[in-house]
Amino acid sequence: MIGELLGDDADYVIQPEPLGTGDAAAWGVGALPPDVMNLVLLGSDSPLIRLESVRQLIDSHESLGNQMTLLTAADMMAPDLGRIVRNETGQVMDLIEATDWKGDQYDPTEVNAGVYCFERQWLARCLEGLQPTTNGEKYLTSLVSLAASEGHRVDGVASEMPEEIFGVNDRVQLAQVEAVMQWQVIERLMRSGVTVQDPASVYIDADVAIGQDTVIRPNTTLLGRTRIGEDCEIGPNSIIQDSTIASGCRVTASMLEEATLEDGVDVGPFSHLRPGAYLESGVHIGNYVEVKESRLGQGVLAGHFSYLGDASIGAGTNIGAGTITCNFDGKDKHRTEIGHGAFIGCDTLLVAPVSVGSGAATGAGAVVNRDVPDDLLAVGVPARIMTRKPQIDRTDSTE
Amino acid sequence: MIGELLGDDADYVIQPEPLGTGDAAAWGVGALPPDVMNLVLLGSDSPLIRLESVRQLIDSHESLGNQMTLLTAADMMAPDLGRIVRNETGQVMDLIEATDWKGDQYDPTEVNAGVYCFERQWLARCLEGLQPTTNGEKYLTSLVSLAASEGHRVDGVASEMPEEIFGVNDRVQLAQVEAVMQWQVIERLMRSGVTVQDPASVYIDADVAIGQDTVIRPNTTLLGRTRIGEDCEIGPNSIIQDSTIASGCRVTASMLEEATLEDGVDVGPFSHLRPGAYLESGVHIGNYVEVKESRLGQGVLAGHFSYLGDASIGAGTNIGAGTITCNFDGKDKHRTEIGHGAFIGCDTLLVAPVSVGSGAATGAGAVVNRDVPDDLLAVGVPARIMTRKPQIDRTDSTE
Amino acid sequence: MIGELLGDDADYVIQPEPLGTGDAAAWGVGALPPDVMNLVLLGSDSPLIRLESVRQLIDSHESLGNQMTLLTAADMMAPDLGRIVRNETGQVMDLIEATDWKGDQYDPTEVNAGVYCFERQWLARCLEGLQPTTNGEKYLTSLVSLAASEGHRVDGVASEMPEEIFGVNDRVQLAQVEAVMQWQVIERLMRSGVTVQDPASVYIDADVAIGQDTVIRPNTTLLGRTRIGEDCEIGPNSIIQDSTIASGCRVTASMLEEATLEDGVDVGPFSHLRPGAYLESGVHIGNYVEVKESRLGQGVLAGHFSYLGDASIGAGTNIGAGTITCNFDGKDKHRTEIGHGAFIGCDTLLVAPVSVGSGAATGAGAVVNRDVPDDLLAVGVPARIMTRKPQIDRTDSTE
Repeated sequence: MIGELLGDDADYVIQPEPLGTGDAAAWGVGALPPDVMNLVLLGSDSPLIRLESVRQLIDSHESLGNQMTLLTAADMMAPDLGRIVRNETGQVMDLIEATDWKGDQYDPTEVNAGVYCFERQWLARCLEGLQPTTNGEKYLTSLVSLAASEGHRVDGVASEMPEEIFGVNDRVQLAQVEAVMQWQVIERLMRSGVTVQDPASVYIDADVAIGQDTVIRPNTTLLGRTRIGEDCEIGPNSIIQDSTIASGCRVTASMLEEATLEDGVDVGPFSHLRPGAYLESGVHIGNYVEVKESRLGQGVLAGHFSYLGDASIGAGTNIGAGTITCNFDGKDKHRTEIGHGAFIGCDTLLVAPVSVGSGAATGAGAVVNRDVPDDLLAVGVPARIMTRKPQIDRTDSTE
Repeated sequence: MIGELLGDDADYVIQPEPLGTGDAAAWGVGALPPDVMNLVLLGSDSPLIRLESVRQLIDSHESLGNQMTLLTAADMMAPDLGRIVRNETGQVMDLIEATDWKGDQYDPTEVNAGVYCFERQWLARCLEGLQPTTNGEKYLTSLVSLAASEGHRVDGVASEMPEEIFGVNDRVQLAQVEAVMQWQVIERLMRSGVTVQDPASVYIDADVAIGQDTVIRPNTTLLGRTRIGEDCEIGPNSIIQDSTIASGCRVTASMLEEATLEDGVDVGPFSHLRPGAYLESGVHIGNYVEVKESRLGQGVLAGHFSYLGDASIGAGTNIGAGTITCNFDGKDKHRTEIGHGAFIGCDTLLVAPVSVGSGAATGAGAVVNRDVPDDLLAVGVPARIMTRKPQIDRTDSTE
Repeated sequence: MIGELLGDDADYVIQPEPLGTGDAAAWGVGALPPDVMNLVLLGSDSPLIRLESVRQLIDSHESLGNQMTLLTAADMMAPDLGRIVRNETGQVMDLIEATDWKGDQYDPTEVNAGVYCFERQWLARCLEGLQPTTNGEKYLTSLVSLAASEGHRVDGVASEMPEEIFGVNDRVQLAQVEAVMQWQVIERLMRSGVTVQDPASVYIDADVAIGQDTVIRPNTTLLGRTRIGEDCEIGPNSIIQDSTIASGCRVTASMLEEATLEDGVDVGPFSHLRPGAYLESGVHIGNYVEVKESRLGQGVLAGHFSYLGDASIGAGTNIGAGTITCNFDGKDKHRTEIGHGAFIGCDTLLVAPVSVGSGAATGAGAVVNRDVPDDLLAVGVPARIMTRKPQIDRTDSTE
């Protein structure tokens, strides 16, 4: 739905049939509030057009009291764009379609950027009388010679950054425009204090925010509403989407989706934080660890091969290699609760719903399908609770 | 073997000693069928030469009835290529080696592309009389002045895309030529309806085919005879070789080798499909799943940490995290057969040859070394078959 | 500490307050040994300056007996660098700051590279009398007009590769200079016999050494003191830091840190070799294998999902999928010793300190917390030693 894309701040009209830019403009003008005196018309296929250029266009239009003013790009090699014809005083007299151009189409010349400012009454009147071309469509570009023939002055404001007029008519142009925008995004980040080691191999969405002195390493993709703090090291080869990362974190060769990292967390390589992963400060996630809808308390260590889903894990707990939360019974999801300072032995299976108390421990290979009280040890398949207090022994962990 | 590279459609002759292009041509001409009247000679180190240019060369040669015609590139800065000397009528009179060129070697000029069309009888006669240069080699380039001195007209056909003459004499030039070819491959895909988000970070072999509206994300490598359908999302950071992917699939940060995916399969991140992996429609492969020589039926779920080798798995079966098919006994490989609608609990070891029936289940941590009948449950180390019908319980799965 | 960066071979002086290049030079000159007659001054923010250019500067300075000679770049568009003014004989008469330049700042012109050769006595005398500018700082650039006014000849030696003067004043320029250096590093490697398939997607530190006919595939990052032998295939998507790789190795989509690989080792995808991983010749590491502080003997096979930490593994041993060395007891690390020709079954937990003898085997899912003698079999949770010699059976391995 176009309305969703535009949001509540924008009104829109849908042109019922694709009968050219002149017809589209007529539909748009008809829907304007009555107090609009001048309006700007521009296509949605030129995403590089800058706000500054539109402002200059408006300023020039208003100060000269024009009926029509257009944005141009001088000295462009743009074989498919309309050519601007000025008279000796600089006034725009005509706009010639590229296909009708007699000169060499590859010679640089001044071209039409497709961004116009109009006096509303004049435009409305002209659009009523606008004749379709032989293909049945009506074009805004016809208005240039019309204005000139009526004795109105048409001015062309030349863009100060002509590349901004590049439009997107196919996927090749889309890639080219995206490359320009990528450079703008990355250059802005670098100027704001982010080190991007190899900009050509990095892809960063426009809305991503990154703090001072963070380093983005090669082959990294940052997407959506991702927020990254200061002094982080992200990549190489990380993919991060819609995640919030505080300061002093490291994310190497890992994928994060809607995850939250407090200060000083390190992740990777080859780990995967899924939506709802919340890692408090100082958490260490090593390699091959998957976290989903789980909160890991301060300083939790999960160094290797674990699946932690729908779990709460207290501060300082150590998760051994091969730990799996069996959270799904084929119908519903169940939670795993682990206290602080616990030691989960290697290859422990936590059959949820289940809890392991603070200071408790599980033996290597334990299949825990009943709750383990604080400070006790569970071992075996299925796990039995031992009455003695666990020694934190060699079965508990890896490093 | 050069014969294998060329295939059965091409004949070839091997020049016994490297005595120059003139000597090589003599060996080649000697092996031609008698009915060949004109022939094209070109080096194998110019991979960008276009078929269109060779056709234009042949057309010009035949229509003018020349003894010799060559492809040239005008206005090239090519310090190491031979210079074309034409007379006032445009006829090529001489070809001067770059090393003998008196002018500035960096001035753009017309150069020899190393692609020739010859009248066969004339060429054969000239090659017999061709004298070696001081280093003992014979060069085709000497034939230009010879033809001119005999009063034959030599024409030069200028390429319409001069970059095509770039040759590969070292690895730097190899990388440059490969970059040009990469752009050609990716541009062709984009024009055919594929979105390539960041072309500079993507590598795609020339024979890869991709369907309409598929999106290739950054840092992705597509190799060999890979075929990808429509509406897929491939990457970021995927590596896919010789695989067949139907429509509506997603492959994120994963590696596929000789794998087959039907419609609507999703894979990754960090999964590895090896040769013989066949995933029917709707299969879900999450993270850290390795599949080899196995067929997974419709809608099989394998969300986390599994090795599935030499297995057949029926539709709708759920594979718990940590499942391993123990398929190798040190000497032979054995198969694992799992029915449809089965539930394999977390960390189940399937000691092949073994079967798990349709609707059957295994408990978390089970070591299954005997067959599990339909609809029954196996638990323990080693697994015992329980007489009761399994409840699909919380030990079976993860999500 | 700057001393650590410079090493023992360099003396250094720290300018107490940032009062300009003239002040910095005065501090430096004051610390020179008495026998220095001429000296070179250059900024540390121009990392592309070539040794050859500095040598040419010194040669010219000494042969002309100048008081001052500077390196320049001709025909540069460098809006922020000082302009060189020469008289009709080519002598440098003045140096005009970019901000004081009357001409178009974007017109190419000859600019100051910021690399100077001085006669020491003259420099010392001039620096004493050097007046600060209005901002309180003293600049070396003021010495050009001073020398000219004293009747001394100042010469400008034009760089043969003007790009070398690019300096680093912000992160955008840092990325640009790094891109130039990256191309230099990769071009040097290609010329020395390394194939870099897609140079734009590869990042290689300057000190990395790579042998003949090794292929670097896309999206690969090679860092630090990494050494790679001949005929290797590295990447796609590998990250290798401070590691030593012999010849004939393959590393795919994996991360190596301070690891050592002998000849013919293959690794990946998605494996992680951490510091102290030593892999003897012919070792096979498949996917999802983590190795740390461990030596794997010739031909060890670890194909899937294993954590091998603080272990020694004899030649020819097979490590089943899911094997974990439980090496940490919460306080200390313990070692695992495995003999040659052993077979470690899938999902075996090796609770260190523990040893498994040569020719011994463990069953699938065994939790081994006591030593297994040579040629015997351990099975169960916890593992019992069986008195019979193990058959290498189907529980031992995967492929």
